[in-house]
Amino acid sequence: MDENTPSPAAVRRVACIGTGVIGGGWVAHFLARGFRVSAWDPAPDFEARLRRLVEAAWPALTELGLADGASRENLVVAETLEQAVAEAEFVQESAPEDLAVKRDLLARIDAATPPGVVVSSSTSGYGMTEMQVDCATPQRLVVGHPFNPPYLIPLVEIVGGERTERWAVEWAAEFFAATGKSVIVLDREVPGFTANRLQEAMWREALHMVANGEATVAQIDASITEGPGLRWPLLGPCLTFHLAGGEGGMAHMLDHFGPSLKSPWTRLEAPELTDELREAMVNGCEEAAGGASIAELVAARDRALIAVLRAIKDVRRDLL
Amino acid sequence: MDENTPSPAAVRRVACIGTGVIGGGWVAHFLARGFRVSAWDPAPDFEARLRRLVEAAWPALTELGLADGASRENLVVAETLEQAVAEAEFVQESAPEDLAVKRDLLARIDAATPPGVVVSSSTSGYGMTEMQVDCATPQRLVVGHPFNPPYLIPLVEIVGGERTERWAVEWAAEFFAATGKSVIVLDREVPGFTANRLQEAMWREALHMVANGEATVAQIDASITEGPGLRWPLLGPCLTFHLAGGEGGMAHMLDHFGPSLKSPWTRLEAPELTDELREAMVNGCEEAAGGASIAELVAARDRALIAVLRAIKDVRRDLL
Repeated sequence: MDENTPSPAAVRRVACIGTGVIGGGWVAHFLARGFRVSAWDPAPDFEARLRRLVEAAWPALTELGLADGASRENLVVAETLEQAVAEAEFVQESAPEDLAVKRDLLARIDAATPPGVVVSSSTSGYGMTEMQVDCATPQRLVVGHPFNPPYLIPLVEIVGGERTERWAVEWAAEFFAATGKSVIVLDREVPGFTANRLQEAMWREALHMVANGEATVAQIDASITEGPGLRWPLLGPCLTFHLAGGEGGMAHMLDHFGPSLKSPWTRLEAPELTDELREAMVNGCEEAAGGASIAELVAARDRALIAVLRAIKDVRRDLL
Repeated sequence: MDENTPSPAAVRRVACIGTGVIGGGWVAHFLARGFRVSAWDPAPDFEARLRRLVEAAWPALTELGLADGASRENLVVAETLEQAVAEAEFVQESAPEDLAVKRDLLARIDAATPPGVVVSSSTSGYGMTEMQVDCATPQRLVVGHPFNPPYLIPLVEIVGGERTERWAVEWAAEFFAATGKSVIVLDREVPGFTANRLQEAMWREALHMVANGEATVAQIDASITEGPGLRWPLLGPCLTFHLAGGEGGMAHMLDHFGPSLKSPWTRLEAPELTDELREAMVNGCEEAAGGASIAELVAARDRALIAVLRAIKDVRRDLL
């Protein structure tokens, strides 16, 4: 952090390096939030693809509400990486998932970005510790991992590497929140972070089922979209099971379904349901419920399910 | 199947045995679809709890639209199991997940239910083969596994046991569909069926993360509700990743992210990404997309995300 570090809420110029599905999605997000965005990608035809992606996203962003001054004309296509970041107050890197590529690119970005400016990587799995090794000023590099499409899904997971300084993580959390994102700050590097670990577990089970002829792709997708997937926009896996326990909540659920953790319901082995884990889950659910009773949560879940079912029905009718 | 077996669409009287969270939810579903429902549970105070559950569900069901003749007055509380099923044209069992309890209860239901009438179990994990062992006429027993709450979540997974006859599976699929459910018929018994295997994999990973202090309950839930959980009501895990591949779809996604299947992103080991599996995933996604192009799917996903985000925002405002 130095005299170049802007206040997170004062940032106006961001750079996006790498403009594929994720990087292009970031460009659309920042344009919609009123930023001036300079973008660069090594692909010779990237500008056409990027503008197509922004065009496709713009109706959705317009419907959600653009920030004051938001315009597609604030997109500046740079000729070099160095040009793209030269005046940036924040940089988001979204290169392919290849460690050597990430290391090299982040070192080049670090060398060309004004000191004190935070650089964030969209990596879906690498730790910043292993990516920042060739950077001269690694203290300002963080992971800021989005979900596809970054212009609509709120989640950003933020975590630093061993050589990242704490201020950079805090700055990034404030900055992303100021652009309307929902931020989770992780205390330590875990491969895949949080959301990817969770969805990857489900994805691997799905691949096993297809590989073994236990279910088709269509059955797997329907089992989620017609089933538990409808609950997850309002209640995550923990609060969902808090309600599965009826009036007894998570405590009853763990005591009742605990034994089925020993069943071969997936290829993923369950942890031992120790007293400590049971207590962490029960207390965590009570905190996450924020004082709402089971009855209040059930009523909210039902309202959410009705709204989600209706919303999806309209979209499906148009699609199919 | 015999002269007692009604046409699936002609059923008017159903019995629900076991009236906890799931069984009571079934009662609410069938009442809302206009059925006469006879219910029984061994708990002495079950009637009060059941009526409370139906009362709590009724506003949601009313808002979604009740069937002609639907009324809470069509609930008949039986004094014995035998009385409950004596005139039933379909029986749904929702006892606790205890194999001995299920075996005993299903044998009693089987003995008291008119011949040719299909009996379905809500079990979330047992196979019908292991549950039907003590039944005199096991050929009409199927698993009909719902999701909580059964009166709002459409999915029902149907699968028979070794002694179940094919007509019973087909009859149950037709009957549940006639009551507005989304039906998946599985060809063979797989522990946990499909949706539970998938969500259980995620749940076990979540328990590991809490047990190891890698994330809190609140972080785990937020990582889903603010992230991938928003996509799953419209697009299951397979079509979601079909879109993650950009214009190249699932084929590009597997070729690009295939190597990360080797990464320790979860405690669940990934299967080998063989040519056969790659082809099954790619072809499955193309079929599941039903001819929709990537661009059309992206546009539909964005519309769904906006609708879901808006729906959830209102519910959250009321809840928190």
